[in-house]
Amino acid sequence: MVSKNQLKLIKSLHQKKYRNLHGLFFVEGIKTVNELLNSSFKPHLILATALERNRLEYDDVLEVTEPDLKNISALHTPSGVLGVFEIPRQAETDFKGWVLALDSVQDPGNLGTIIRLCDWFGIPQLICSKGTVDCYNPKVLQATMGSITRVIIHYTDLQTVIETATLPVCGAFMDGEDMHHMDLPQEGILVMGNEANGISGTIEKLVSQKVGIPQFGEGHTESLNVATATAILLSEIRRPK
Amino acid sequence: MVSKNQLKLIKSLHQKKYRNLHGLFFVEGIKTVNELLNSSFKPHLILATALERNRLEYDDVLEVTEPDLKNISALHTPSGVLGVFEIPRQAETDFKGWVLALDSVQDPGNLGTIIRLCDWFGIPQLICSKGTVDCYNPKVLQATMGSITRVIIHYTDLQTVIETATLPVCGAFMDGEDMHHMDLPQEGILVMGNEANGISGTIEKLVSQKVGIPQFGEGHTESLNVATATAILLSEIRRPK
Repeated sequence: MVSKNQLKLIKSLHQKKYRNLHGLFFVEGIKTVNELLNSSFKPHLILATALERNRLEYDDVLEVTEPDLKNISALHTPSGVLGVFEIPRQAETDFKGWVLALDSVQDPGNLGTIIRLCDWFGIPQLICSKGTVDCYNPKVLQATMGSITRVIIHYTDLQTVIETATLPVCGAFMDGEDMHHMDLPQEGILVMGNEANGISGTIEKLVSQKVGIPQFGEGHTESLNVATATAILLSEIRRPK
Repeated sequence: MVSKNQLKLIKSLHQKKYRNLHGLFFVEGIKTVNELLNSSFKPHLILATALERNRLEYDDVLEVTEPDLKNISALHTPSGVLGVFEIPRQAETDFKGWVLALDSVQDPGNLGTIIRLCDWFGIPQLICSKGTVDCYNPKVLQATMGSITRVIIHYTDLQTVIETATLPVCGAFMDGEDMHHMDLPQEGILVMGNEANGISGTIEKLVSQKVGIPQFGEGHTESLNVATATAILLSEIRRPK
């Protein structure tokens, strides 16, 4: 049975400062927990209700009551399974091929969707500026659908990374050149900006190609959501020449 | 000043059955309300707090207190402006060019994002199966960012529409043909399916071309989110040949 202190620990992991203090995060749902158990992530505590525990591919499961689970869960309707895992040590950056970089993306759902897109489009590394929402935020993890196990995420000073990188740097801009009429490089760093303000001025100066997604309506829409814009640009990058 | 009965009416509009009963829906935020006021939508009640009312491009504004607004709002942090509008009469379907059709899309955020994508990509008509989430749901409207004024939305029996349409019918499938290697028609109906189950069996039989988005990772991701998949396919459809 899970202890009160363990429940208190898990509840604290809703907040970034406690995730960083303990070096732990949690995910929910049988599918995602099993996916993390079968990856390089190290489990710290695995909890399940009596009904669900047999569905877990793990021996050392702590039983939790439904009311206790509801109290610590990030979901309206908890799924019966919750896993606490260690935050992995930041990997060395080793850039080749295409790399995606985010400049202060704020919305957890957008980051989660973008991680899932990296997985789909075979982008193994994602660089996040320090102002980007934490990828171990429960809402981000809910939106990644397990893709977090297959994409390496770096939180770092974006300016330094771009300044020292040898890859060409493309950035998404509302007034960028029509992506259909430009020669995108074979590899590079693709930078996507903040939901409201786009790419910051500092990073804009380091961008070698400004890419735009052409609009086909009457031009009233102000912008695309950053996750849908990322989807379109990654699809274009992966398009056979 | 807004009356108690008016507040009660607005609160009821959170629910689809009352939206249909009264033929009304509401949106929030100065930008969206102004956008609807400058469109063909007919205003029924326009509310604002004392602080915000001068920002509205409308004369007949009812003042509302912040606590009253918080009580009727669909937002955690109400924006100070709320507009109730009439649900327009269903337009006649008149299909030419590309039309998007949704087969039981359930998530309000996905539908809102898809409406915004139709606006961006110049798809003037969206057909929703009767099982698709209501486009006047406050969460859908929040995600459309005003695009609802520029996209005509039909709720109808999808099977009948497709059976009687003369346009070619393309559908998005996980095992569809790689979109990069097929000749997409110049016009047609593009069908997107439900988040969990994809396109239903009945509709699948009516699809003439099954389109797939190629995956570039190691093939572990189960699927793309329906809104990001729609973004990628609409971008491909609009790509100059």
